Amino acid sequence: MEKLKKYVSVKDEDQFYHQGAVELLVFNFLLILTILTIWLFKTHRFRFLHETGGAMLYGLVMGLIIRYATKASDVESGTVYECEKLKSGPSTLLINITNQVYEYQYKREISHHNVNGHQGNAMLQKMTFDPSIFFNILLPPIIFHAGYSLKKRHFFRNLGSILTYAFLGTAISCIIIGLIMYGFVKAMVHIGLLKGSEFHFTDCLFFGSLMSATDPVTVLAIFHELHVDTDLYTLLFGESVLNDAVAIVLTYSISIYSPKENPNAFDAAAFFQSVGNFLGIFAGSFAMGSSYAVLVFYYSLIIFYHLTKFTKLCEFPMLETGLFFLLSWSAFLSAEAAGLTGIVAVLFCGVTQAHYTYNNLSPDSKMRTKQLFEFMNFLAENVIFCYMGLALFTFQNHIFNPLFIFGAFVAVFVARACNIYPLSFLLNLGRKQKIPRNFQHMMMFSGLRGAIAFALAIRDTESQPKQMMFTTALLIVFFTVWVFGGGTTPMLTWLQIRVGVDPDEDLKTEAPSQSATNLDKNTTKAESAWLFRIWYGFDHKYLKPILTHTGPPLTTTLPEWCNPVARLLTSPSAYGDHLKNDETDYIINNDELTENSESSAHMAVQNRTYSSQATNKEDINEGDLGLGGYKLQLEHTAGQHQMNSLA
Amino acid sequence: MEKLKKYVSVKDEDQFYHQGAVELLVFNFLLILTILTIWLFKTHRFRFLHETGGAMLYGLVMGLIIRYATKASDVESGTVYECEKLKSGPSTLLINITNQVYEYQYKREISHHNVNGHQGNAMLQKMTFDPSIFFNILLPPIIFHAGYSLKKRHFFRNLGSILTYAFLGTAISCIIIGLIMYGFVKAMVHIGLLKGSEFHFTDCLFFGSLMSATDPVTVLAIFHELHVDTDLYTLLFGESVLNDAVAIVLTYSISIYSPKENPNAFDAAAFFQSVGNFLGIFAGSFAMGSSYAVLVFYYSLIIFYHLTKFTKLCEFPMLETGLFFLLSWSAFLSAEAAGLTGIVAVLFCGVTQAHYTYNNLSPDSKMRTKQLFEFMNFLAENVIFCYMGLALFTFQNHIFNPLFIFGAFVAVFVARACNIYPLSFLLNLGRKQKIPRNFQHMMMFSGLRGAIAFALAIRDTESQPKQMMFTTALLIVFFTVWVFGGGTTPMLTWLQIRVGVDPDEDLKTEAPSQSATNLDKNTTKAESAWLFRIWYGFDHKYLKPILTHTGPPLTTTLPEWCNPVARLLTSPSAYGDHLKNDETDYIINNDELTENSESSAHMAVQNRTYSSQATNKEDINEGDLGLGGYKLQLEHTAGQHQMNSLA
Repeated sequence: MEKLKKYVSVKDEDQFYHQGAVELLVFNFLLILTILTIWLFKTHRFRFLHETGGAMLYGLVMGLIIRYATKASDVESGTVYECEKLKSGPSTLLINITNQVYEYQYKREISHHNVNGHQGNAMLQKMTFDPSIFFNILLPPIIFHAGYSLKKRHFFRNLGSILTYAFLGTAISCIIIGLIMYGFVKAMVHIGLLKGSEFHFTDCLFFGSLMSATDPVTVLAIFHELHVDTDLYTLLFGESVLNDAVAIVLTYSISIYSPKENPNAFDAAAFFQSVGNFLGIFAGSFAMGSSYAVLVFYYSLIIFYHLTKFTKLCEFPMLETGLFFLLSWSAFLSAEAAGLTGIVAVLFCGVTQAHYTYNNLSPDSKMRTKQLFEFMNFLAENVIFCYMGLALFTFQNHIFNPLFIFGAFVAVFVARACNIYPLSFLLNLGRKQKIPRNFQHMMMFSGLRGAIAFALAIRDTESQPKQMMFTTALLIVFFTVWVFGGGTTPMLTWLQIRVGVDPDEDLKTEAPSQSATNLDKNTTKAESAWLFRIWYGFDHKYLKPILTHTGPPLTTTLPEWCNPVARLLTSPSAYGDHLKNDETDYIINNDELTENSESSAHMAVQNRTYSSQATNKEDINEGDLGLGGYKLQLEHTAGQHQMNSLA
Repeated sequence: MEKLKKYVSVKDEDQFYHQGAVELLVFNFLLILTILTIWLFKTHRFRFLHETGGAMLYGLVMGLIIRYATKASDVESGTVYECEKLKSGPSTLLINITNQVYEYQYKREISHHNVNGHQGNAMLQKMTFDPSIFFNILLPPIIFHAGYSLKKRHFFRNLGSILTYAFLGTAISCIIIGLIMYGFVKAMVHIGLLKGSEFHFTDCLFFGSLMSATDPVTVLAIFHELHVDTDLYTLLFGESVLNDAVAIVLTYSISIYSPKENPNAFDAAAFFQSVGNFLGIFAGSFAMGSSYAVLVFYYSLIIFYHLTKFTKLCEFPMLETGLFFLLSWSAFLSAEAAGLTGIVAVLFCGVTQAHYTYNNLSPDSKMRTKQLFEFMNFLAENVIFCYMGLALFTFQNHIFNPLFIFGAFVAVFVARACNIYPLSFLLNLGRKQKIPRNFQHMMMFSGLRGAIAFALAIRDTESQPKQMMFTTALLIVFFTVWVFGGGTTPMLTWLQIRVGVDPDEDLKTEAPSQSATNLDKNTTKAESAWLFRIWYGFDHKYLKPILTHTGPPLTTTLPEWCNPVARLLTSPSAYGDHLKNDETDYIINNDELTENSESSAHMAVQNRTYSSQATNKEDINEGDLGLGGYKLQLEHTAGQHQMNSLA
């Protein structure tokens, strides 16, 4: 008998696995549908509903089916059991039920008013992800990819404007949404639609900060496809990427803002602590991300190489790709483990990897890492959009408050306008190349809310105000993605923004039209912002030579008394670079990561063919390693030069 | 006050996330160490400890540190609470503790004697994976990659021998280990070292089946590096890959073998039911895996294409790669959801994808999928080996029984000998090209146990016999990976097995030495097994034309009355193929997936460059789609031909 019982329990356990398989299968099915839809859209040049909107739509339909076609099965799960012996919730709970011990794992704390929502449908419960999956698994590849595929050249040209929009703009947006929502909430309390004790000003600010995260996915996909004006593209891309980072840290800082006494009154000490938190977390995450990219990756390899006379890692592209992937992920995890924001760390890790580490990779790894992150980004993005569609029906604690939702819509648009127009006016005072009116309207129109806003909202859905916020955020995401995302192409036509621009041609054609000396490289530099020039000089003279194999040797850029240090830090191949002396506009022209440089990818594989043949040869006749390795390294560097000059 | 408390609980929750980050960071750190070690080993041609052995060693050290350097923290987790109101374990449990409701999720059932093991260290508990992670996340990419990178040509030449070793050999091995272990257990009961009621013959057979899964990773990595004789390589690779599938289904069939009355006595009905289960599950999984690969992928696309006049999917390599990945994963999930074995489905899905779907992919996708699965395989493999090292110290319910362990070592070696030598003798009676003595010794020596044996053993560690088995399996894995894995290179030298063989040259040099007509293609066919010839004919005449763009048109191979159907099923490009008429030995020479064909990957990128340029052009001047798409398709097919004739 006991034996039989054991077998039954084994079968039950298998049942558990299989149910997990069913839910994953649902997602797989949605993703396959989405891919087929993207294919359809791409073939028919259909741009009124973007693929992300399509993914959301499929999710919505699937959510509807799951909600109303599956039955409530797990009756007992809605009951609350009393346990007097426990004082706090342990992480693992062992419970003796009819002489069998079951192990239960802590999931979360729930408010009393949410208990009813748990009654019923087990399928719905299982389709609801743990919010930490968004932050730890789905968002990092998206954010990393955004950083890694940044078009550096245009980004650094518009650095000042992007930083202004991202920092100042997000702060303005957060405060304005917070204020408007506070007004709405007060009004609702006044007419008796809401209990006053629930909603504090900090909650409104929290909502403001999470709704300030704009989504780069939908609009930029269309921009990319249509080859919209590169400056507009860069402004929007830079703004939305950095703005995500700012919004995430801001939301976190507001959520840990804890005034000592009355939560409604302004507490200066707590406020400054929050500002300090924001700055500390942002700076810490930035430092963590970039240092992982640069120091750990580059230096550990250089030191390893010098100490042990290894063959270079780039001969083993698989290992190099693996190391690249693991270190980028470690940047995320280390920031999380240190109490910082992993998403911000991984963004700056991506930017730095693209700017420095990418140049040290072997041609094969360049292509592999690019394709790998592109693929992960593609999957993660579509999973999130499918899930957003699903969540409207499968999430069980929605609170639809029409007035709050109306207020939020008003607040979001007013805040976007107060962000873009005044800041553009201020920026135009300082910019040589003004941001035209139609660009400003397009930026205003492109303020879509997407994955980050959703992920921030779903992270905490315990209290009733938070649930109301989640529902509202979800609806704003739906509306903006469908309406604004779908309206992008007509809007571009209406605003007469030029499309079909080749980003590589863009700089060359602009330069002669605005200055007398035709095609002079210095022109490009002269017309860009002062911030860019300072950064460029510093980066080119010191950072590039230290962190990559390119740029002039440090011995020529550093003062003479630094020579011993300079010699140690300069890569041997940098001297060769200097002789060629055609690397001065490296930062300007080096844009291999962009999609247009298929030819460099092609070159990359040619190099790979060569290098792996060499490796095979070495594998067979063993020994004679040191010299062989060195020769390979030189030849590899030569190959890289060739590539750079072609790109 | 309530507000403050809420903030504290938010912080607690963050604490939970951060702890997850710390554990993942430990794994990342181990993997980075492993990669650096592999680099070191590859550079120094160090083959006495293989990288998998290195990964296990690092895991072991890390486990030791975690075990003895972290403190027991969660005191309450060892206590068992009574709950009279519940009748069975619900999937979610809501518990009211000091006026706060906590949600707990069902994890598993545990035996009473294991409760003590739960006392103490929270870190150890968190480092212990859920066994389902092995089966659902880590194993599928490894197994799929094994199937996808199968060297088809040699595999089909040795098909008969491989099937014999995999099916008959595994059954022999399972029964012999089971019998020897049953003897040992009986002896132990006799001298009072074990309670008699615990261990049944089915348990011994269960142990036999899980210990029969040999691991292809370690030995084959060395073989691949040294370019060992291709026939030996194929025999071992084919055997260990198929044998995993057989062992998994066998273990499952034995675990659900439930005789009606006395579990010790032989029950014919239950036995035949188990055999039926085995055959049903194996055949079902095989069918599910291959049909996903072939029907869903190829036909849905063809039908889609014909119905809607889409541009071909291969113009969007990212979508194609995504679809390929999702469908392969769906094969796994569907099999699991249907109560079959996902691992087996994913193996045959991989084999079929490589044989048919691969030929339909665009050149870019061929490279992308290959690199993607190679990378996933690399990561998953190293995670498993690190985890095996960790498990020796972090798993909390080890039972070390020296006599049982000794018995298991004896049983494993005797069973391997009874599998290899008699079967080789029988096979040599039928084979034209005999399996020489030294190959047999090498196969005997290469019977390493690895990831599959470990995953099968960790799946159920509830009862004491199962825990004893797990501990024993772990020790056998350690021993075989370190000792046999490390001894592979000396053993190859000692047995005088030739290394440095080029697998592409192998067939060509063998053919003239054994037959009069030099380099005649029919020779290769004549000397291979009859099973291969039948399969080859069928595959070439019917399956290839139906499922890929290659091979002769069906109109020429099918009887005349089938013409209407044949025309419908044949890809338009197949007629072109037939005119060239150089595809007769397609199955023999088409081995692009192997590592040696760097040149085809190179070609692939050239093609990609061309095709994406074309896509870009199309993007700019819209319209005129139908014709453009058709032209592209024809040109693409032509490019593929060129590749095939080059490869």
